[in-house]
Amino acid sequence: MDGYVPGEQPRDRRYIKLNTNENPYPPSPRVLEALRRAVSDDLRLYPDPTATDLRDKAAEVYGVLPDRIVVGNGSDDLLGMLFRACVDGDDGSVAYAVPTYSLYDTLALIQGAEPKTVPYPADFVLPVDDLVALGARLTIVCSPNSPSGTLAPLSAIDDLARRARGLVVVDEAYVDFAKETALSLLARRPNVVVLRTFSKSFSLAGMRVGLAFASPDVIHQLGKVKDSYNLDRLSLVAARAALDDCAWMQANVAKVQTARTELIAQLRELGFRVLPSDANFVFAESPTHAGEELYRKLREAGILVRYFADADLRAGVRITVGMPDENSALVAALRSFATH
Amino acid sequence: MDGYVPGEQPRDRRYIKLNTNENPYPPSPRVLEALRRAVSDDLRLYPDPTATDLRDKAAEVYGVLPDRIVVGNGSDDLLGMLFRACVDGDDGSVAYAVPTYSLYDTLALIQGAEPKTVPYPADFVLPVDDLVALGARLTIVCSPNSPSGTLAPLSAIDDLARRARGLVVVDEAYVDFAKETALSLLARRPNVVVLRTFSKSFSLAGMRVGLAFASPDVIHQLGKVKDSYNLDRLSLVAARAALDDCAWMQANVAKVQTARTELIAQLRELGFRVLPSDANFVFAESPTHAGEELYRKLREAGILVRYFADADLRAGVRITVGMPDENSALVAALRSFATH
Repeated sequence: MDGYVPGEQPRDRRYIKLNTNENPYPPSPRVLEALRRAVSDDLRLYPDPTATDLRDKAAEVYGVLPDRIVVGNGSDDLLGMLFRACVDGDDGSVAYAVPTYSLYDTLALIQGAEPKTVPYPADFVLPVDDLVALGARLTIVCSPNSPSGTLAPLSAIDDLARRARGLVVVDEAYVDFAKETALSLLARRPNVVVLRTFSKSFSLAGMRVGLAFASPDVIHQLGKVKDSYNLDRLSLVAARAALDDCAWMQANVAKVQTARTELIAQLRELGFRVLPSDANFVFAESPTHAGEELYRKLREAGILVRYFADADLRAGVRITVGMPDENSALVAALRSFATH
Repeated sequence: MDGYVPGEQPRDRRYIKLNTNENPYPPSPRVLEALRRAVSDDLRLYPDPTATDLRDKAAEVYGVLPDRIVVGNGSDDLLGMLFRACVDGDDGSVAYAVPTYSLYDTLALIQGAEPKTVPYPADFVLPVDDLVALGARLTIVCSPNSPSGTLAPLSAIDDLARRARGLVVVDEAYVDFAKETALSLLARRPNVVVLRTFSKSFSLAGMRVGLAFASPDVIHQLGKVKDSYNLDRLSLVAARAALDDCAWMQANVAKVQTARTELIAQLRELGFRVLPSDANFVFAESPTHAGEELYRKLREAGILVRYFADADLRAGVRITVGMPDENSALVAALRSFATH
């Protein structure tokens, strides 16, 4: 099998980095202060394996009880736990609509399972009937979806959860940039699992923290396949401090949303086909260059974006919404070579 | 299945904590300085998924090439990767001598596999012939072994690796406290994997960093089942800085070794049966109290040690070697109730 291939993380800092959906704004100063305070001799001691402080704070912020929360070393770790708990080559199965986050394919292969996939239509409306029909033990909805940026409406996820045989995992890595979240479903759909991350909206991709919300029973089962000490002391402190300053995150999200609207308008003006986006990135097809070709031209211009080899994605590129000057540089570069 | 149960991490700091094999001495001041410098806006960016800086430094320190090293979120993460890569309910299998680190049982269960175990004799000599006969895809030797503290001699591991059908993993979490390491086998035994951690000798249990050393091919295969961003930016910095100051670690190890010798002598004086130890802990059986009972009495006295429910371990407790005053407090408490 092949492993998951992450986006480039160049050591050359001169690139404008619009390829891995990091937040262009820094984390809250309160996070940095809390981290500096936590750098102490106590690092000789193991972290709290139950992440009590962080879970208590998350419970308060998201309005759920702490026994409905488990922490992960990024939401990738939480996905790994879900696959280990539910999927194997024999009777466990996993389903999702494609194209989506390609790590799901990798995690299925690691478990020796063949994922059951259904194609998204061109407008990326969630194919609920098709997913229900697959009857998988684990059905995953990435919403907003990567790399399309499109959101599955709450009503569609609710419908899917009501009719699905197994767990429905809503991977909400990008949801703070969107209109609505599936968190409210937790109260009435015991088979719903919602995943969040601190990597995007909270500007903490470097600290690797994710949260899963689910029924107490599902959380208990996930705890069995969790690495005991999956979060280090400083990651726990960073995430807790980030939740103490949600206003900082929300202000950055608002700036990214404004820039996203502007970027989409400018790309469309250049003749690009751009999907509507509820995330901090856009998926765009140039009128003149296929995805990999566009990626190469932009790289020469010092700008990194992400292209995909899949047949249904190779016409476009995924572009992270950056700082206003970074987005302007991108548009200027595209204007010079990628228009009619 | 049941999950792995880690040792208590009490929030009450008044306990003398001799239960989870943390180093009583703090990490190097150079580690703390490097961490403070790394607490910056860059935390918004993903970490280096290939951990190039850390692997390059580890290559220099341990005298192996960087393509023979992969990093883990603690050595538990590396064990998880090895089990995911090699063990499943069908044709994958795992073998080890027991009693040993009970996480191996948990990881086997997660993969749907029944571990093949052979008993250690009372003196904990590695049963090489029995392990070879099991012909497992993955054979694990914890050396020094937990909770016994005993070391498998290099010659025995070499013999096992030469005759084993599959990979031989030497879990060297405690090896810096011991007389010899299996790292030298890497050059001539392509099936040997050596695991190291920064949690014990380097006083960084709170940062979750481990290293695996193996052939380039094994490292490549492990990379496929590794979480792309399994180490956060600060853990990478901490481990790198710790390797820049190995003298600090070695000085702390020497102090722990001296205290270990003294503690073993004092326990034996009190009538305890104590196994020889090459680790930063000792396994000791009281002449008057079984393990769990001794644990409870010590807990009442404000001292935490670890007991085990297994039939072959329940007579004793595992005691981490602490600061000299902590070890004295332990011996004084034992003298008051646990002697003839």
